[in-house]
Amino acid sequence: MPVGTQATVKSLSPGDLLAANAQMLLGNTYHLSQRPGAERIDRLGGLHRFMAWDGPILTDSGGFQVFSLADRARVDDDGVTFSSHLDGSRHRLTPERAMEIQALLGSDVAMAFDQLVDPHGAEVSAAMERTHRWAERSLAARGRPDQAVFGIVQGGVDPELRRTSVAAIAGMAFDGIAIGGLSVGESKAEMATTLAVVADALQGDPRPRYLMGVGSPIDFFTAVEHGVDLFDCVLPTRVARTGQVWSDAGRLNLRNAALQDDPSPIDAACACEACRNHSRAYLAHLFRAKELLAYRLATVHNVTWTLELMRRLRASLLDGSFDDLRHRVASAFARPAAAD
Amino acid sequence: MPVGTQATVKSLSPGDLLAANAQMLLGNTYHLSQRPGAERIDRLGGLHRFMAWDGPILTDSGGFQVFSLADRARVDDDGVTFSSHLDGSRHRLTPERAMEIQALLGSDVAMAFDQLVDPHGAEVSAAMERTHRWAERSLAARGRPDQAVFGIVQGGVDPELRRTSVAAIAGMAFDGIAIGGLSVGESKAEMATTLAVVADALQGDPRPRYLMGVGSPIDFFTAVEHGVDLFDCVLPTRVARTGQVWSDAGRLNLRNAALQDDPSPIDAACACEACRNHSRAYLAHLFRAKELLAYRLATVHNVTWTLELMRRLRASLLDGSFDDLRHRVASAFARPAAAD
Repeated sequence: MPVGTQATVKSLSPGDLLAANAQMLLGNTYHLSQRPGAERIDRLGGLHRFMAWDGPILTDSGGFQVFSLADRARVDDDGVTFSSHLDGSRHRLTPERAMEIQALLGSDVAMAFDQLVDPHGAEVSAAMERTHRWAERSLAARGRPDQAVFGIVQGGVDPELRRTSVAAIAGMAFDGIAIGGLSVGESKAEMATTLAVVADALQGDPRPRYLMGVGSPIDFFTAVEHGVDLFDCVLPTRVARTGQVWSDAGRLNLRNAALQDDPSPIDAACACEACRNHSRAYLAHLFRAKELLAYRLATVHNVTWTLELMRRLRASLLDGSFDDLRHRVASAFARPAAAD
Repeated sequence: MPVGTQATVKSLSPGDLLAANAQMLLGNTYHLSQRPGAERIDRLGGLHRFMAWDGPILTDSGGFQVFSLADRARVDDDGVTFSSHLDGSRHRLTPERAMEIQALLGSDVAMAFDQLVDPHGAEVSAAMERTHRWAERSLAARGRPDQAVFGIVQGGVDPELRRTSVAAIAGMAFDGIAIGGLSVGESKAEMATTLAVVADALQGDPRPRYLMGVGSPIDFFTAVEHGVDLFDCVLPTRVARTGQVWSDAGRLNLRNAALQDDPSPIDAACACEACRNHSRAYLAHLFRAKELLAYRLATVHNVTWTLELMRRLRASLLDGSFDDLRHRVASAFARPAAAD
């Protein structure tokens, strides 16, 4: 899922996303509730109409952003009080309010409200227990029959806690299971081990599995190996705006001086608008001139390539070439950005 | 002609320009020669290929930008020495170099090199005489048979000088006649009077007439009344990026608070991507959130509406409704921006 934090995947139109074969987008409960406001979006016909996206939308619960505010947020057993990053005004988020906001937004998938903490910290166990209680309250506060609700497994990088959390969350009537608390500072090995523990504990559970906030091209393979179906990540769009584009050759930095005379496209195998119409030389010029089209074309490419990678990854599971594809992508992305 | 200063109409792709029915674009000799460089664009196959625009391109001569550098430029009878706005490096522009750069860019229409001065200043007459000598040198330096060259009439707001300049420029073998030195500080009345003088002096001349750097919706009518065929102006795209959008109702400011709850499009009669897909409320949100898509959608709309206005203006000349259309547009644009 490309990430549309503020009801737009940065620099892209709905048409660009369709052309990139995007199927589902993510919207941010915290950001949208702060601006333009969930009640306003509801009055305007819901998030789909507001951002002109007919496909599925998943909304996060706001927990991740609120806990990212760090010293601006205070948690208690009932919920979180925080001050807005926009104007400092005080707000309160509880499982019930997070579900209410998501019902107002009208997303297709709502996420239960959870507590995120440092995976190596002392609070992991208590935050997990609280997450389980909040998961029950989130389900009870479910506002509309046409909205799926996913629960979130927490427990840091402790295998025992993860198993406990899977048992608790998978025991509730959620429509899907999300794995939270990863890609927040743990090592690659810890992520892989944790995914293996969760996969093992979820054995036989038919519900879709969503790894939150991941990932990089290499992370996708690790996660899919452990049964993950769904991802969201700002990485492809965020790095694009700095000039870093992805292909089967790995990373390429469009700000590199040598590219100013390169008539080839980013990736001759890619069918995106940037690769069909424009040379690296032109893109290098646009980045140097700080032209708005630079950010858009690089983003179009990274989203297209990433979604195409996922399509190839799904195909590789069927034809047995998963390890092959994984090895090629891992080799390409192990290198630093070409021409950096 | 939408203006593609740095080989891109700010925030728009070639596909957006085609969808807006753009026929011809303008590129800036000064900017492109500074970055990425005319020789580089030539090596990459010319400006059309570089910016992926198959339609006609007109390039200015660089004179306007160089003289805008003010105290960074020193003029003599042979040309202008100036320091770059990018890095302060010293450069020289002469009629011969301006034509050479435009031949390297490979535009369809090149402009003769001219000297622009304050239309009320003491230099108007001398600058005009110099412009005439530079026009002859520009024509003599014509580099390629597949490139049209337009001469530029100067003479400030003095009717006698304008008549002298038309006689000189129209007497040379240019493919088109441009009117320079307007929209640079004179009054609307002075512009109209000067256009009338030039139109009268050009009576019977069959070549296309191009009014440089104009204009606003109202200016188009004044100029067309006096036989102008071609315009370029950054106004529709520049104001769009501040949130000001145009329609038959006049100006609308998308930053206005009241629009945050307005479900209607900018202009229900407009077929552009912004008006087809998005509400004023959504656009108001994008501007408040400083999202890149805001600048693009507002620009798509203003370019589409402006080019559609020119199409309606041409049709009105054939069916006799020119004065009617002019009156309606003038009334709408005489008002301050709606909801400002």
